[in-house]
Amino acid sequence: MQLLETLKWRYATKKMNGKTVPQEKIDEIVEAARLAPTSSGLQPFKVLVITNPELKAKIQPVAMGQTQVVDSSHLLVFAAWDKYTAERIEGVYTHLAAERGVPYSTYADYVARLKSVYLSQSEQANFEHAARQAYIAFGLAIAAAAELHVDATPMEGFDNAALDELLGLPAQGLRSVTMLPLGYRDQENDWLANQKKVRIPREDFVLKIA
Amino acid sequence: MQLLETLKWRYATKKMNGKTVPQEKIDEIVEAARLAPTSSGLQPFKVLVITNPELKAKIQPVAMGQTQVVDSSHLLVFAAWDKYTAERIEGVYTHLAAERGVPYSTYADYVARLKSVYLSQSEQANFEHAARQAYIAFGLAIAAAAELHVDATPMEGFDNAALDELLGLPAQGLRSVTMLPLGYRDQENDWLANQKKVRIPREDFVLKIA
Repeated sequence: MQLLETLKWRYATKKMNGKTVPQEKIDEIVEAARLAPTSSGLQPFKVLVITNPELKAKIQPVAMGQTQVVDSSHLLVFAAWDKYTAERIEGVYTHLAAERGVPYSTYADYVARLKSVYLSQSEQANFEHAARQAYIAFGLAIAAAAELHVDATPMEGFDNAALDELLGLPAQGLRSVTMLPLGYRDQENDWLANQKKVRIPREDFVLKIA
Repeated sequence: MQLLETLKWRYATKKMNGKTVPQEKIDEIVEAARLAPTSSGLQPFKVLVITNPELKAKIQPVAMGQTQVVDSSHLLVFAAWDKYTAERIEGVYTHLAAERGVPYSTYADYVARLKSVYLSQSEQANFEHAARQAYIAFGLAIAAAAELHVDATPMEGFDNAALDELLGLPAQGLRSVTMLPLGYRDQENDWLANQKKVRIPREDFVLKIA
């Protein structure tokens, strides 16, 4: 099965060699994130693709100095909606109706239900919900990179607020959630490159209830 | 690319036909979840595999009556750690050290850092963090099912606390996060089966910073 082979191949690359990933591969990785399923199809996040070396150099210190930030060829940032709004929810279903060639009223009741759920929750609760959806796409982008034999480092270890400021995310109603530097492993200098991949034993991971 | 084809094939199945998914496919789907990358490799969640019809019938009413709960052949429940503890974190690294054939002390400093971060945060903040990791695995399980042409319905719409009680999760230090019924679409009776898949346009989803 392709996906299992893919997941066995990948690892959280600790040292990249600075080589450039072809644009068509970046496009496929981002496309996997775009096709990710999300709650009610809201896709409450965006993916930033950063190639500018000066900007990457500014990001590195707010990411605990991790070298992959600057040694990657493309740095993806997953940024979730800071809150849910009526306009955002309606926007998704306006687009859906247009794409399916049906009147917006087809979804009016459903949109009303979504609004009554989300707009009665705190902004923070909705951000947490949006962030979870971003993690689905994050996982699929990681898998897409690995299938293309592009190395990647899933990253949470950075100062979110500082990164948000650097990228001007507050003005766009977004908050950073994860980063994913994409590039190629430096096989000789990456201490993790040859380590055994270890996971929780299957019998501890799965609980069967028959 | 296999993953993109896979993601285009799948959809959130609304009506399943009751046919049984072979065990070897279930095993591969769960394996994709087990191989998912997680923060510091903690894998702070488990996957429950439920086949018992009486139990599924009890779950359906706490899942807004959704028929896929009972019409699926296997119902996966992703359940995250309710909190991070020193014992849990140490357990992961004890296992890792054993699997890599190195002394536990290799990871002692790193474990101490993880404990200082997580044990100073609230239980709720740590649960949210664990839940996010579960969503990575959730996404990969969805992709695995689709590659095997097994239908699935990613589900958040259920009463988490009620499900936790039904499954005895509190005693195991777990809280349910998502469900994933696995089965086969009832093509004729699933209103969503033939609808166009719609996503945010690429130009609105990706922000390029060159």
